[in-house]
Amino acid sequence: MSSTTPILEADGRGPLVGVLGAGQLGRMLALAGYELGLRFLFVDPSPQSPAGELAEQLCLAYDDPAALERLAQCDVVTYEFESVPAAPVEWLTERVSVFPPAKALGVAQDRLAEKSLFQRLGIPTAPFFAVDSAEELAAALEQTGYPAVLKTRRLGYDGKGQFVLKSPADREPAWRALGGVPLLLEGFVAFQRELSLIAVRGRDGNAVFYSLVENEHRGGILRKTLAPAPNAAGELQAKAEAYVTRIFEALDYVGVLTLELFQKNGELYANEIAPRVHNSGHHSIESARTSQFENHLRAVLGLPLGSTELLGCAAMRNLIGALPDPGAVLAIPDTHLHRYGKAPRTGRKVGHVTVRADDERGLQERLALLEPLIADDG
Amino acid sequence: MSSTTPILEADGRGPLVGVLGAGQLGRMLALAGYELGLRFLFVDPSPQSPAGELAEQLCLAYDDPAALERLAQCDVVTYEFESVPAAPVEWLTERVSVFPPAKALGVAQDRLAEKSLFQRLGIPTAPFFAVDSAEELAAALEQTGYPAVLKTRRLGYDGKGQFVLKSPADREPAWRALGGVPLLLEGFVAFQRELSLIAVRGRDGNAVFYSLVENEHRGGILRKTLAPAPNAAGELQAKAEAYVTRIFEALDYVGVLTLELFQKNGELYANEIAPRVHNSGHHSIESARTSQFENHLRAVLGLPLGSTELLGCAAMRNLIGALPDPGAVLAIPDTHLHRYGKAPRTGRKVGHVTVRADDERGLQERLALLEPLIADDG
Repeated sequence: MSSTTPILEADGRGPLVGVLGAGQLGRMLALAGYELGLRFLFVDPSPQSPAGELAEQLCLAYDDPAALERLAQCDVVTYEFESVPAAPVEWLTERVSVFPPAKALGVAQDRLAEKSLFQRLGIPTAPFFAVDSAEELAAALEQTGYPAVLKTRRLGYDGKGQFVLKSPADREPAWRALGGVPLLLEGFVAFQRELSLIAVRGRDGNAVFYSLVENEHRGGILRKTLAPAPNAAGELQAKAEAYVTRIFEALDYVGVLTLELFQKNGELYANEIAPRVHNSGHHSIESARTSQFENHLRAVLGLPLGSTELLGCAAMRNLIGALPDPGAVLAIPDTHLHRYGKAPRTGRKVGHVTVRADDERGLQERLALLEPLIADDG
Repeated sequence: MSSTTPILEADGRGPLVGVLGAGQLGRMLALAGYELGLRFLFVDPSPQSPAGELAEQLCLAYDDPAALERLAQCDVVTYEFESVPAAPVEWLTERVSVFPPAKALGVAQDRLAEKSLFQRLGIPTAPFFAVDSAEELAAALEQTGYPAVLKTRRLGYDGKGQFVLKSPADREPAWRALGGVPLLLEGFVAFQRELSLIAVRGRDGNAVFYSLVENEHRGGILRKTLAPAPNAAGELQAKAEAYVTRIFEALDYVGVLTLELFQKNGELYANEIAPRVHNSGHHSIESARTSQFENHLRAVLGLPLGSTELLGCAAMRNLIGALPDPGAVLAIPDTHLHRYGKAPRTGRKVGHVTVRADDERGLQERLALLEPLIADDG
């Protein structure tokens, strides 16, 4: 499947990396890759994309033949979001190395396939039921009870395409809101917190893992990540790594993969995977010996993976819909501002801030200085 | 002189930074600045420049009116090499904020002005004499003895425009090689090592300093930097910082400034300044809490400066004329490869490698793995 031969180059010009999607994840991939001397070609139908500001971008649909022809000429192709349509990825896979593999994309795009994979691999999940009719919804709710979450099987993103049912009165509105497409009903897990594990697998099958991080969402959007997650080293970390290792093998995976988890006491429940670099790994740009972006590129190019060790504690705070005063943010010690070049708009991720400190207490002190500067919307 | 008002922006688009020169220093400035959401406009007559690969570049002479008009529209203008012609910088200074100030450029471009400034500020230097004729050369050599170094007063670069006189027999050839332009003869300091101090001064006059680093040159080109320089903390660091502080004040400086020094026992002799980010500061991308590139941009934009604290030990190894196998380099733990997108050519800096470790011993072990992979020319 995946050749272990690194993708090299004859002269000083680095390999050309094709990327489907030119958002902030693509932008940060390019910033990591340029250090290594890589070149980039982005495809994204949206003009003025974050990555298009610093690399060539074809403003074309993902299945546009001209875009696909150009991508097929790249040394390797990857993607920065998981709703990439399957057909062009399959077409490309026959012509050029595409990582992560199309199979991973297929699983990540279908919540039923995803949850079924977890189940098959012995990875705990919330109880789930396929729902294709109002009758099936009623039957599934008998099993899960309330609260429960009704979701479209195909990808939602940042909380879109979901409906939380708190009582039987919500059944009708939920069905009206989402019915008509394949759905999934998930039972409720009374979890204490959300964690995620960013992991990377090279073309030689070698894998490395970042420390588990703790994520805080609001309005379905990630607001804050703590790295490492407090009190998660040891057993929880080992458990999460074992789960991802099974997923890596099942999907013949190459690249960065993110596993989102719920923690309930000593147990972890898999929520979903993202076959790409992930918002909860942005801290790694400053906080780890090698960032998730560099490691993703190393992986897809067949290069050795870099150390994932953290340098002290870090927190990542998303900037949603508004940008803070950069001078005030940067006055906080060891604080790093990232702006994606996007015009602020409600609910839009326009940047993030990473704060580092030697220990958790120092980190909380710095976060206390940062928080009043951020005017979150939504 | 320099307003302390930060250069901000109304919407999500960051300030536009104009840069004279689009080499690897410009490239690394852009990579740091893109994280902050800055935009860049480079001017450099060379096509296919390292920075031009990832930002807009005007392929025009530095004094081209069209280039200057565009630069005058930028929010701030800086430069990444010190042989920028004076006239366009003066023209720009009347129209837009230019940092570092033109005065610093003038001093750095003239070895006599530079050495005279050191002298005036009480900063030790090798003995030096202006030489404009064969007679003056003879007279100066009476004072310095042999060996001595004859240099053009105007900028050389990486050892060009210099002639080492080892005995009276070298006097004639040295004069033949360099005579006819204003020259400087420098006496020899029997130094033990070369150090450099990278320092940054903000628009509010605040200054921060990186740790002294130790530099190893060969063939007039920097090969290796150790950060921090072993046994240089304390007195030597304090002395170097005091010298740079005097230079900062004398030049009303804003931005990164590099002071190259010779160490002889407990004394430091100033060799030259570079009014820009510097090859001996590349290690800071990975080894410091804030890189020299980010701090230069913070300074010229009037933003608070970031911490210069080092995270353990690091070494920077230049890649001259040839690129090593990236897979072999990246297999060394905590090793970071930087390639500038330049075709290898004898004597050309085409990249660098930064190695980190917790202590000096670990660093030397990793350097021992790296060295055999690098086929230096020159």
